[in-house]
Amino acid sequence: MLENEQSQSTTEDGIQPGDAELYGVPASLVEDVATALKAGELDAIRKTVTDLHAADQADLMEQLTSRNLRRFIDAFLEDLDPEALSELEETVRDEVIDLLEPQEIAAAVAEMDTDDAVYVIEDLDESERREILDAVPDEERFELEAGLSYPEDSAGRLMQQDFISVPTYWTVGQTIDHMREDEDLPEDFYEIFVVDAMMKPVGTIPLNRILRTKRDVDIAEIMEHEPILVPANMDQEEVAFLVQQYDLVSALVVDDSNRLIGSIMIDDIVDVIQEEAEEDIMLLGGVGDGGIHESTFQTTRDRFVWLFANLGTAILASIVISQFGGTIEQMVALAVLMPIVASMGGNAGTQTLTIAVRALGTKELTSSNALRTISREAVVGVINGILFAVIMGVVAALWFDIQMLGFVIAAAMIINMIVAALAGILIPLGLHKAGIDPAVASSVFVTTITDVVGFFAFLSLAAKYLV
Amino acid sequence: MLENEQSQSTTEDGIQPGDAELYGVPASLVEDVATALKAGELDAIRKTVTDLHAADQADLMEQLTSRNLRRFIDAFLEDLDPEALSELEETVRDEVIDLLEPQEIAAAVAEMDTDDAVYVIEDLDESERREILDAVPDEERFELEAGLSYPEDSAGRLMQQDFISVPTYWTVGQTIDHMREDEDLPEDFYEIFVVDAMMKPVGTIPLNRILRTKRDVDIAEIMEHEPILVPANMDQEEVAFLVQQYDLVSALVVDDSNRLIGSIMIDDIVDVIQEEAEEDIMLLGGVGDGGIHESTFQTTRDRFVWLFANLGTAILASIVISQFGGTIEQMVALAVLMPIVASMGGNAGTQTLTIAVRALGTKELTSSNALRTISREAVVGVINGILFAVIMGVVAALWFDIQMLGFVIAAAMIINMIVAALAGILIPLGLHKAGIDPAVASSVFVTTITDVVGFFAFLSLAAKYLV
Repeated sequence: MLENEQSQSTTEDGIQPGDAELYGVPASLVEDVATALKAGELDAIRKTVTDLHAADQADLMEQLTSRNLRRFIDAFLEDLDPEALSELEETVRDEVIDLLEPQEIAAAVAEMDTDDAVYVIEDLDESERREILDAVPDEERFELEAGLSYPEDSAGRLMQQDFISVPTYWTVGQTIDHMREDEDLPEDFYEIFVVDAMMKPVGTIPLNRILRTKRDVDIAEIMEHEPILVPANMDQEEVAFLVQQYDLVSALVVDDSNRLIGSIMIDDIVDVIQEEAEEDIMLLGGVGDGGIHESTFQTTRDRFVWLFANLGTAILASIVISQFGGTIEQMVALAVLMPIVASMGGNAGTQTLTIAVRALGTKELTSSNALRTISREAVVGVINGILFAVIMGVVAALWFDIQMLGFVIAAAMIINMIVAALAGILIPLGLHKAGIDPAVASSVFVTTITDVVGFFAFLSLAAKYLV
Repeated sequence: MLENEQSQSTTEDGIQPGDAELYGVPASLVEDVATALKAGELDAIRKTVTDLHAADQADLMEQLTSRNLRRFIDAFLEDLDPEALSELEETVRDEVIDLLEPQEIAAAVAEMDTDDAVYVIEDLDESERREILDAVPDEERFELEAGLSYPEDSAGRLMQQDFISVPTYWTVGQTIDHMREDEDLPEDFYEIFVVDAMMKPVGTIPLNRILRTKRDVDIAEIMEHEPILVPANMDQEEVAFLVQQYDLVSALVVDDSNRLIGSIMIDDIVDVIQEEAEEDIMLLGGVGDGGIHESTFQTTRDRFVWLFANLGTAILASIVISQFGGTIEQMVALAVLMPIVASMGGNAGTQTLTIAVRALGTKELTSSNALRTISREAVVGVINGILFAVIMGVVAALWFDIQMLGFVIAAAMIINMIVAALAGILIPLGLHKAGIDPAVASSVFVTTITDVVGFFAFLSLAAKYLV
């Protein structure tokens, strides 16, 4: 009944290159699992589920309906990779956690890397978290509590607390012997850290350099000096910047006294980079942090807030229009054309805004080049303003056969597109300076300004020169 | 004159944690360099410039004006890290390349990793590229030409052609000895690849496992089986997905016959992930791929195209309005209120669209959950449609003291917000199915639909029930 060719090929027979569809969780697999769950034919899919990579198990769960997810957890909890819990998208993870006993969560959490475990339990409410922590073995609990003691989205939350550090006076041989004997090593690591007597990091050595060096060479001779140190309370976005900027494979996390307390691996940073870029996209699109797995109620509420803010600005624009009711009554062409002026301004403003928000996010827009960027945007606004003024002026004059109408819409267009360019760059810069994430609120401000200015410029010029 | 505390502290005295401003290129450093370049006091900053990390040298160059950039290159070309060229943002890199002789570029390129070198020269025009390749030593040229033979944005372009592969029958000791002797190793690597007699990869071993294993153990005993193979022509977005999904530190690239030909390191994937997320943001914002460093002319042209498409849709909406000229003349309140209906629909559509585009990009939205997602969006559209219909209905009825106007705008609002939700999800899904990047064109389609439907629903209901 079950055709799980795809899943088997990723896990047993090796992967045939050339067909990217073979990776991940194909739709046919999801369907097969859903059908089997519904029919209660669990053994038919047990091996398929077990053989999946933790990330694929998570993806599979994300695609199931709530009812099937419950059946899935009931049937396969024992077969799942504990890490799958940390790979789940937040709202689905909440759903799964609600299905589990605290002891079951504790057992999974105890098997994860500290950073993944912290990530899973950090969003739970206090009492739930306490229950889980109490069920976790002492050593892991201590590490988890240490991780949780740092601020949300900080380096401390992201770090692994297991790492290899050796004193400066060791040789390569001693280091290798130490690694062969130490049982308590992290599962994956790419660098060894060299510390002084106070546990302050003084160097790093990539593993491949250790492998390529003779046993009797001193560690101090082959290490990279002056490693970049990440304070445990540094924001994850800053950490991601450092890792990217300096091509680090792992970042050294230190406490207030500069003592080494953990390390962050590049694969965790990959997730942070993705998350932060995602956040900008979502905020610019007016959708907060909700993805497609969020509940309908939550989604409706999140979007309502944004739409409500937008309604306020739309009403503001309508008030401007209402001041020119008499003018519109005399020339209804104005009502026909006015949305064009507002819409073009809104789009031009959004373009500039998008560039500005991303350039601020990636630290490309700084106080050194702000003035240059502002004047460049203004120039682009003027040129495109003039171009569209000409186009729209001609279209309007021909459409309604009123030459002056062409001039009026052209002038309004130029004004609004320059204003749009300036608003698009100055508002995010201002918010950034005020310490507010420019992605959050910029687009409401910008479109409010372009709507109000667009309608006002067009209608007031029309009132003066046309009617 | 020159206060380069910041740059010194990142390079000589170690970094004091807690002050993120110490990393990267602070504005004060840019100013100091600009002042020194203008005054011709080059020696004052030579050490500062030389000590900077390649990525910081690139950032510094990006912040200089064109005139200072020319002075900078003239003065410091010899002192720069060749990698800085590959760290430069594209338009600034083009500027720098124009300032250099082919021989100078060739010298820099020859010192870079293959993937970085390919990245630098791939965008040059044919004759320029030829000139540079001819000036590069044979061995590097061969590798570069091999890299360039793969399609743009493919795994083949991203890969390093140096890697360590060992046969299955070797021991850990033999592997370590081989690494100690082989001169032609890549600078950084985290895994060793195990291949069969046909050079087909059969396993991978993280370096730390080699270090922790006794010399006489067989490689085959400690390797990870069935590595994930990346065909050289796979799109970089797919590669990034695999690396992220399966937490790979390096990806094995194979040719058509499954022979190992290179590897892609996770730090190169980090750049791809950033690039792809960036692309979605830029496309959704209607700004193509131009950043803040692009020339004013190019920027104006890129944005013009998008704005021109938007003008077309705005005119379409105006044509709809013009059909109801008589109705508006009789009740000017309609002209005042109609932008609200259109704007709310546009925003609601953009919200759904943003979610859909990202969910498609991250493979969270699939054929398995498309139907569920569509109905969820429709429900959210209905609920928010009703909520805003009530709010706006009351506001409109009170504002103009016409009860029926409230009902009309409420009905139009519900219609437009449901249409917005459906358009926001169906259009990106349709484009994706048709093989078109949904980020490119979705937002034009969605706002066209919400404008047209918004104006038409509101004005036609008004024509029927109000005037």
